[in-house]
Amino acid sequence: MQTLKPVIHHVLFWLKNPKSQADVDRLIAGLKTLEKIETIKKMHIGIPASTEKRDVVDNSYSVSELMFFDDLAGQKYYQDHPVHKEFINSCSHLWEKVVVYDMIDV
Amino acid sequence: MQTLKPVIHHVLFWLKNPKSQADVDRLIAGLKTLEKIETIKKMHIGIPASTEKRDVVDNSYSVSELMFFDDLAGQKYYQDHPVHKEFINSCSHLWEKVVVYDMIDV
Repeated sequence: MQTLKPVIHHVLFWLKNPKSQADVDRLIAGLKTLEKIETIKKMHIGIPASTEKRDVVDNSYSVSELMFFDDLAGQKYYQDHPVHKEFINSCSHLWEKVVVYDMIDV
Repeated sequence: MQTLKPVIHHVLFWLKNPKSQADVDRLIAGLKTLEKIETIKKMHIGIPASTEKRDVVDNSYSVSELMFFDDLAGQKYYQDHPVHKEFINSCSHLWEKVVVYDMIDV
């Protein structure tokens, strides 16, 4: 049996109006709709933690989405899923920048 | 009972010699030493996944370290732990840039 090496998908969102709690809440509500996509094995929606401020720590984003998939096919299924596309349609006006990191366990 | 809201610590490493597999392996070996720090509840060491290339996807880093802690105190304990400091001493010559994102679940 192969050891499962999950694909981890991390998206950081920088909002156009980062001080608007309503916009933060709208984005979080939008992200929660993604949970129904079957290939997402685990999902964490987060905001910056109040860890120690250090030069290397970037806490300038507003919202973080962290997802675990079993494999690349699962991530691709999510990427193309109508629920994901609907999320982008309804929420993309909120953000000015998105950065994505996709990892596979070594 | 309070719902546990984990603190997630994500570190991306850009190496001075990203094409050196030996340096990548050295960094991964160093990261594996961190696993013994008790407050790390879960840890994923990863490399860029071969997901679809898109403008928003940053796959320029070499190695990713993703850790889960139960709380901020656990993350602070890790940050100050001698094993973590020894890792920095022995591996920091390998990297030219580090970016850290610390999240707490909403």
